[in-house]
Amino acid sequence: MKKRAIIAITMGDPAGSGPEITVKALSDPAIYDKCRPLVVGDASIIRQASIFTDHPSFIINEINDPEEGTYTYGTIDVLHLGLIKDLESFRIGEVSKEAGNAAFASVVKAIELAKEKKVAAIVTNALNKEALNLALADKGLHFDGHTEILATYTNCRKYAMMLALDDFRVVHVSTHVSLKQACERVRKERVREVIELGYRACLDLGIESPRVGVCGLNPHAGENGLFGDEEIKEIIPAIEEAKKAGINAIGPLPPDSAFSALHGGLYDILVCMYHDQGHIPVKTLGFNYDRKHQEWQAVKGVNITLGLPIIRTSVDHGTDFVHAGKGTSNEASLVNALEYAIALSADK
Amino acid sequence: MKKRAIIAITMGDPAGSGPEITVKALSDPAIYDKCRPLVVGDASIIRQASIFTDHPSFIINEINDPEEGTYTYGTIDVLHLGLIKDLESFRIGEVSKEAGNAAFASVVKAIELAKEKKVAAIVTNALNKEALNLALADKGLHFDGHTEILATYTNCRKYAMMLALDDFRVVHVSTHVSLKQACERVRKERVREVIELGYRACLDLGIESPRVGVCGLNPHAGENGLFGDEEIKEIIPAIEEAKKAGINAIGPLPPDSAFSALHGGLYDILVCMYHDQGHIPVKTLGFNYDRKHQEWQAVKGVNITLGLPIIRTSVDHGTDFVHAGKGTSNEASLVNALEYAIALSADK
Repeated sequence: MKKRAIIAITMGDPAGSGPEITVKALSDPAIYDKCRPLVVGDASIIRQASIFTDHPSFIINEINDPEEGTYTYGTIDVLHLGLIKDLESFRIGEVSKEAGNAAFASVVKAIELAKEKKVAAIVTNALNKEALNLALADKGLHFDGHTEILATYTNCRKYAMMLALDDFRVVHVSTHVSLKQACERVRKERVREVIELGYRACLDLGIESPRVGVCGLNPHAGENGLFGDEEIKEIIPAIEEAKKAGINAIGPLPPDSAFSALHGGLYDILVCMYHDQGHIPVKTLGFNYDRKHQEWQAVKGVNITLGLPIIRTSVDHGTDFVHAGKGTSNEASLVNALEYAIALSADK
Repeated sequence: MKKRAIIAITMGDPAGSGPEITVKALSDPAIYDKCRPLVVGDASIIRQASIFTDHPSFIINEINDPEEGTYTYGTIDVLHLGLIKDLESFRIGEVSKEAGNAAFASVVKAIELAKEKKVAAIVTNALNKEALNLALADKGLHFDGHTEILATYTNCRKYAMMLALDDFRVVHVSTHVSLKQACERVRKERVREVIELGYRACLDLGIESPRVGVCGLNPHAGENGLFGDEEIKEIIPAIEEAKKAGINAIGPLPPDSAFSALHGGLYDILVCMYHDQGHIPVKTLGFNYDRKHQEWQAVKGVNITLGLPIIRTSVDHGTDFVHAGKGTSNEASLVNALEYAIALSADK
């Protein structure tokens, strides 16, 4: 049997839900059959989370190198960075420079371990953008979020954001730009690149002949140029090039019905032309509010950065400062992210 | 007990699935407890559909005025327009001028009946745009679809397209324009108008204090102007004006998570800034592909034109020329459209 891969899990902003959902995810013994999970962050924070999530018997094993881990159920191995000085005065649910710095250091350490191949993949918990940049200001740095940190520290320029909900997968041509700018970003070269990134991700997941659907930009994919010509000028040429390279690229698809088809298993991934084209269907399906109990029941979905020289998956939600610290935050997205990281690490 | 409202159902393109889903929808006796359904179109086409949908015992009652209908289960009352000359040579599943003309005449007749208050509402089946305009060319006319026909024949300028899937409701600031143009259409006056139309629709549906969510245009609703300023310049001022007028308008909401909240019952309707922002979540939830049997299982959703002086709801799908004529087309969307028309007709 192949040795279980070591997967680094960053704790995220320690004032958020990252620590507690990490403990909750690691309270399922099945995870340990599939991988060797290593938390990167602060052992005292994880110990505290193990208590308020009702797992006081878990052993928190502080280590300095991935090789020192036990990786057995009931023990949480933490690559301890000593980031939180005084747990007594540390406030969960609040933005702070200390928390932002701890979150940042955990990510940078995890990237380093992945580059050194000491871990097979990184799974990240959520950052708080404000806390992060409070901490970075001292260093003269600024990052919008994880993706930019990862791109910088791995020196990567061609990447794309993929979201996945089980086998419902989307990858984006652009993300955090205005919708007007997103229209401008729909260029043949970039669309071609994202088709390729999506295709390779499917291969990495073990899908034999990936069917890559490509959405149009405009309603009804423009109806042959009737409303918008980006399909004709940019998207169709990109699809043609991808086909010539042997990729089963299909489209441009009318965006409104494409996701029902994806949900029905008719594609393995859909290339989306802008942030919300892909994010709306993933979150509509993955985030479920329980009307009876008036609370969010499941917050599922994985965020995967494609194109990096390392494997990185992430939760698909924020830090949930409002509920953090009670042990009630839902770990579904983190579990999904772990499973995707395990799948992507296979045969590597 | 209040008298059941007469609801006109146009047969749609007779070469499409309209006739068969109409017969299937009227094969549920419960419909007759809630309304008096009147099909507007061609009796021979409906008779034919009753046979291939396995309802040969249904009586097809040809009438010339809504007052002549029996409106009892087992009889389908058809306001017969004598549109199909020779049923023997008529081809289901094919685009034809005759079919386009029949579909158009049914809609115009239904509008006339609604304006004369002989029917309480119109429910439309799908048109084929090509067949429609083949027929219209002779008359020197052109219409993009139902909405334009309805606006013209009721002399209406301020209208908006609403989609509904049970209590999941969206209404659009723009529809069939390019995404670039859609960005330009996000103007305070129009957003304000659509908030009002959505609010009134909820009141008409009997919702007491409608909660009207308003989506942003840009990812994360622009993050305070970080990507795109339409929220600041146009959407927030429109929301403020609506609030002053006593409407509980909430937003601008980050579009990606807004629909999960709508699905969870946290709003009664969401105002969407462009076609796909509203269409993607509705169709992702409403259209379900059965992986096992490799066929579309449910195609649910209602299209409602708000702002017209008459009540009009519609199926949310096309003519399905590929499958029409076998009796296998799914009537769920038509049933939803009927139910919405009944709800909107109450207390009128």
